[in-house]
Order: sequence, then structure tokens, then C-alpha cells
Amino acid sequence: MRVEFWFEFASTYSYLAAERVPREVLYRPFLLGPIFQKRYGFLDSPFNRDPARGAYMWRDLERMCTKLGLPWRKPSVFPRNGLLAARVAILCAEEPWIGDFVRGVYRANFAEDRDIADPSVVAGVLASLGKPRSLLDDAQTGANKERLRAQTARAEELGIFGAPSFLAGGELFFGNERLEDALAWR
Amino acid sequence: MRVEFWFEFASTYSYLAAERVPREVLYRPFLLGPIFQKRYGFLDSPFNRDPARGAYMWRDLERMCTKLGLPWRKPSVFPRNGLLAARVAILCAEEPWIGDFVRGVYRANFAEDRDIADPSVVAGVLASLGKPRSLLDDAQTGANKERLRAQTARAEELGIFGAPSFLAGGELFFGNERLEDALAWR
Repeated sequence: MRVEFWFEFASTYSYLAAERVPREVLYRPFLLGPIFQKRYGFLDSPFNRDPARGAYMWRDLERMCTKLGLPWRKPSVFPRNGLLAARVAILCAEEPWIGDFVRGVYRANFAEDRDIADPSVVAGVLASLGKPRSLLDDAQTGANKERLRAQTARAEELGIFGAPSFLAGGELFFGNERLEDALAWR
Repeated sequence: MRVEFWFEFASTYSYLAAERVPREVLYRPFLLGPIFQKRYGFLDSPFNRDPARGAYMWRDLERMCTKLGLPWRKPSVFPRNGLLAARVAILCAEEPWIGDFVRGVYRANFAEDRDIADPSVVAGVLASLGKPRSLLDDAQTGANKERLRAQTARAEELGIFGAPSFLAGGELFFGNERLEDALAWR
């Protein structure tokens, strides 16, 4: 049984999880925006809507990156639009290099303060793995766009309300802190 | 330096933290209701307002209690009103038995499904520790009510937006999962 790793590229805590998941997880990119909009009536991050929660999150992320030895630079724009990167990730989810791609996008966003909505940034991550820019076109076919929509709908059906989330044997685990529990679940 | 443990008796995750904190923490009861109301315009628990989040929380609590070896019964009323218990807790915060009182109230709420707003339930917890029912009267003087109001105002000033929270050397840590980080903070 492979644990499913559900993530959103705009999500700060998903960055921590992406750096910690073992090789064998199933990568499940999805979009939080539509879920937030449907559930709460807004598209923005809850961290932007609640200043105390937001201020805490940024400090917590900084501390957690220090603790985990991860590079960190507070992004100048938050949340960034991860749509294109998510389309590439779902297209390539079964590739052996998917984990490196996912971590590359997260580092662009949260360690290098680059705009992951910019095709050249996503192409740059692909290039660093020796993969062609043409994957951006493959990611933007109607069929692949629909795959991401369907996966986001599945996230909602599973009761996913935030990222990262993990699915193990039908059990949902929410948050970077639950990764170990998800991996240990039988 | 003693770590401050900020908790609310209605909070499920505070129950887990109360069972895990070391003896030397400073107990800081406060009320989340006024903070939620001021910040979000509602008094109810966010877990009641978001069914997916609520359903997840109940399952997560059950799993966490199993993992930690804690008794657990889903309360038939949530959130319960912890005002009286919080007034007793702030009155007795420096007593050597404060931890036992706090855990007793949490167990009444989350392991025995009893109404912690009922004075006889709180008196029962006190009695189990050999403490007199008259502490309920002492807890409800104007001066002690004001202490709890001031402590809740201080929670807000500290940027506290949920429970449990921990304060260590000026740093705020949120959530049961951050207890160890708070204790390790220098």
C-alpha cells in the first residue's frame, strides 16, 4: 500500500512535507483555491485573511526550516499561483523524477522567491532535471487540464480541506506533522 | 525559564497537550470564544462551522488518543462552556495540584462526556483532589473574573489565535504538535 501525498504548490507546509516524504509515496497535486472558494466563499489563503494566524505561520515556517535544515526565503508574493506547476506534476506523477520536480518547484517558491506561475520558472526546474520544455505544452492539453480538475474534485470528496494531506488505507491525515502517522498506518 | 501552556477547556487538542506537558509548565487558562468572536465574527468552534474539518478532527482525536494511550469518548455537546473551570484554573494556577485539576476537567469533558459547565462536575474534580467546593465561590468573585478577562486579553496581545499554544522565551508555538519544540526553545 502506497501512501498518497496530496499537496498544493502555494502551500507553505506542503513544502516541508515535500522535503520529508519517502521516495515511494504517490504524488497527488491538487488545487486548494477552488476548495476554499466553495467551502468558505473565498479564494485567498486563510493566512492572509487572519493577520495573527499569518504572522504566526511565517515565523513558524522560518523556525521549522531551520530545524529541518531547509533553505527558506519568505516569498514576496503569497499565495503564488501553482496551476501550471500542478498540471506538469499530474502529467508526470508516475515518473521516477517527480519528487525532484515537486521539490524544485517548492524551492523556487519558498527558497528562491521566484514566480512559479511563470512558465520559464517551471521550465527551468524541468531543465535542471534534463527534461524538455515541451512538457509545459503537454501539461496544458484539455485532457490534462481535466485530469487536474478531476483530482481536485476527488480531494474534496475525500474530505480534504487543506494541504498537505496524506491518505493511507482509507484514512486521511492532515498537516506536515501527520506524515509519520500516515506512513505508520496499517 | 518556564514554558507557558495556554489552553481552553473546550479545546480538544488542548486535552492532548494537557496530558503531555511536563510538571514545570505555567498554566495559562484563557477563553477562545471572545477571540474567535472578535477575529472572525463568530463564537462557535471552527470545527462546527466546517463539516469536513470537523469530521477530520473527531477522527484524528480518536486516533491520537489511541496512539497516546488516553481515554476518549466523543462529547455529546461541543464545544462545552469552560468558563467556570477556567476561573477555577486561573485562581489555582500556582497550586501544586493545578495539573491534576486541569487534566481532571479535560477527562470529564473528553473521556466521560460530562458537562464541565455544571458546577457539580467541577466540584467533583476538586473533591477528587481533596479540595473544597468553596473554591467555586472564590473563583467567581469580581476580581477573579477580571483576572480571566485580563488573561484572555493578554492571549490576544500575544497573537494567540487557537489552543493549545505555548510561549517560550517570547516565542509563540501553536498546537499540540509544537509542545516539544516549545520545550526545546532557548
